[in-house]
Amino acid sequence: MLTSQPVITLTTDFGGRDGFVGAMKGVILSINPDARIVDLSHGIPRQDVFAGAMVMRNACPYYPPGTVHVVVVDPGVGSDRRAIVAETTDAYYVLPDNGLITLVDQLTPVRAAYSIENMGFCLPEISRTFHGRDIFAPVAAHLSRGLSPEQVGPPLESFAELDLPTPSVSHNLVRGSIVYADVYGNLFTNIGPAQISPHSKSWRLELNGKSVTGFCEYYSSVKEKLPLMIFGSSGFLEIAVNGGNALEYFGANVGDTFSLQHIDKS
Amino acid sequence: MLTSQPVITLTTDFGGRDGFVGAMKGVILSINPDARIVDLSHGIPRQDVFAGAMVMRNACPYYPPGTVHVVVVDPGVGSDRRAIVAETTDAYYVLPDNGLITLVDQLTPVRAAYSIENMGFCLPEISRTFHGRDIFAPVAAHLSRGLSPEQVGPPLESFAELDLPTPSVSHNLVRGSIVYADVYGNLFTNIGPAQISPHSKSWRLELNGKSVTGFCEYYSSVKEKLPLMIFGSSGFLEIAVNGGNALEYFGANVGDTFSLQHIDKS
Amino acid sequence: MLTSQPVITLTTDFGGRDGFVGAMKGVILSINPDARIVDLSHGIPRQDVFAGAMVMRNACPYYPPGTVHVVVVDPGVGSDRRAIVAETTDAYYVLPDNGLITLVDQLTPVRAAYSIENMGFCLPEISRTFHGRDIFAPVAAHLSRGLSPEQVGPPLESFAELDLPTPSVSHNLVRGSIVYADVYGNLFTNIGPAQISPHSKSWRLELNGKSVTGFCEYYSSVKEKLPLMIFGSSGFLEIAVNGGNALEYFGANVGDTFSLQHIDKS
Repeated sequence: MLTSQPVITLTTDFGGRDGFVGAMKGVILSINPDARIVDLSHGIPRQDVFAGAMVMRNACPYYPPGTVHVVVVDPGVGSDRRAIVAETTDAYYVLPDNGLITLVDQLTPVRAAYSIENMGFCLPEISRTFHGRDIFAPVAAHLSRGLSPEQVGPPLESFAELDLPTPSVSHNLVRGSIVYADVYGNLFTNIGPAQISPHSKSWRLELNGKSVTGFCEYYSSVKEKLPLMIFGSSGFLEIAVNGGNALEYFGANVGDTFSLQHIDKS
Repeated sequence: MLTSQPVITLTTDFGGRDGFVGAMKGVILSINPDARIVDLSHGIPRQDVFAGAMVMRNACPYYPPGTVHVVVVDPGVGSDRRAIVAETTDAYYVLPDNGLITLVDQLTPVRAAYSIENMGFCLPEISRTFHGRDIFAPVAAHLSRGLSPEQVGPPLESFAELDLPTPSVSHNLVRGSIVYADVYGNLFTNIGPAQISPHSKSWRLELNGKSVTGFCEYYSSVKEKLPLMIFGSSGFLEIAVNGGNALEYFGANVGDTFSLQHIDKS
Repeated sequence: MLTSQPVITLTTDFGGRDGFVGAMKGVILSINPDARIVDLSHGIPRQDVFAGAMVMRNACPYYPPGTVHVVVVDPGVGSDRRAIVAETTDAYYVLPDNGLITLVDQLTPVRAAYSIENMGFCLPEISRTFHGRDIFAPVAAHLSRGLSPEQVGPPLESFAELDLPTPSVSHNLVRGSIVYADVYGNLFTNIGPAQISPHSKSWRLELNGKSVTGFCEYYSSVKEKLPLMIFGSSGFLEIAVNGGNALEYFGANVGDTFSLQHIDKS
């Protein structure tokens, strides 16, 4: 549908209070009054690049082709970390070169990346503390108006990627990691369905001295306040507590490891 | 105005952090790039269906005819609770069949409801944990493009409604309930103006051992940190503290009851 | 670009929970279905007019000409404080007359202000507690459709302005104030670059018994958890802690004063 307004999504760790996001939106609308700005999330835990990558992975793939995603979780703002545009087959990502793109790249490989060095597409004055407003927002607005990403600066041979924990798998024992906790305290892991096939009831999780056996089809299939394992909306194994908080129940933190043991039920 | 973009509002208990809302918006824009998505609230207390119903009641009636309201407060996600489309004279509501529609239905009766069973209007894969993304968002997007609600599935004879506390009223004594507390700690009640006519100063509220006498015209008409009663923006009796928090002042919880006594001032 | 949709921004202290903002958006879209509503911030600390003014100052100047900014931080709602429209060369501000406009007025002087007294542009019923919905939102929607601000009511000779702390400056000693703390605990001050020229390393800040010497170019130019001074995105001196929280580090509050001493390094 050629007449539709181009979509620009915003993902930041700025929270909802200070008007930083508001300034970015103003910059975008001043450059492209027809841009359709969508708040994706502004509640990324502060400076948590991995959490930003997870939120991107869980939301960005659902957007229409041509969407421009601006992501600002940027502990190194103002230092010499690069600002980049990464291009996949269906979207542009405008973000600091600090690994935020890692999980999206696994789903939809980045086919080209460019270092933002042509300051003509940025605000006239670049502050040291707010590249979201001064660099990322205006570049995104120009991309949404048809700017070709090659114009922002030189192509890159490589870009930063996060080190991800990889599960260890043997026939009867899988060791995985908690990679994210959502606002409800549901724990997302790095275990996909292939690693624990079949998904029978004969797997037992142990995490911080507590255990769960078997997989559920939905949260409320166990009693209130009881823990469960489920292959959730992310496609990965999730650990949850029905009507409760798995983060608290297990006393867990992102980064904790757990075991999944295949138990003989004969 | 025929050329205006159709409005889809989103109300959830997802909070602002995880990108769940962001995924729903992407699904909607992929189906209907011309939809105008409006965040109504994503801060409904987790799994609090009554609070969701209150927020809907206080906001949805202000939208233009034809608006599609998506509401996801869904403790039973993935279980056999139905997903429905409810139709009033001026709006569509796309939500789980768990009573969320109750208070809207009191203001603007639901004239038809349909069980979402035609999976052709949902995402190709339906997860067990995220029907907001997989069912509610895509169905809303199709409705905003002109899909007739009959096409989503069979009509329903009835739908779930919440049990609401009803005030007891005698000539001199009214007993009511706290039904909602807003983010400022203002307490919303189930007492309408008809139940305590005339609104003279001769009514005294007692709640958890504390009392207030008479109604105010505005918050700052009593001194800072003093309690007051007011017929607020919801049309119902509200209990507030000027510049303070009535939830804390009265040590109150949603569900608490109170008395209003007509006092003789002769 | 004449065909673009008019922009209305919303800034409130309503938080994200209760649907108050959602009701305002519905009112706007019912009056002007083509308005483009932008959430600027709904996390202004409750009833903190100065914080609202700071957020406006930091975000509103970035919006395209003709934008209508609605700002509701309104401790006096329902009392006899005026509701006004303030007009600058490039924007309209619709807000209570309680000083919210002060900092924007310093950047872009208000050239006319009008008291909203023509109730024909408000909702038919005006509640005592929610002028955001009943007065500010509908007036903004009418302005975005081309209503001339003179039509809302009589012009004002003057409007409320906040008393701002002014820094005291002598050759070697500057005394300033903390005027805002953002969600990260970064402290914004009332010290501009002119007051401490040159920005050499020879200035030492003392705040609540702790000190910092010299200015940084970016947050991560000091070690993790160490304090720093920087001329940030606001154009004013900011006090921060790399990867930490300056509000906590210094035990500071908005309103605290500090000294900047020019130290001889010879």
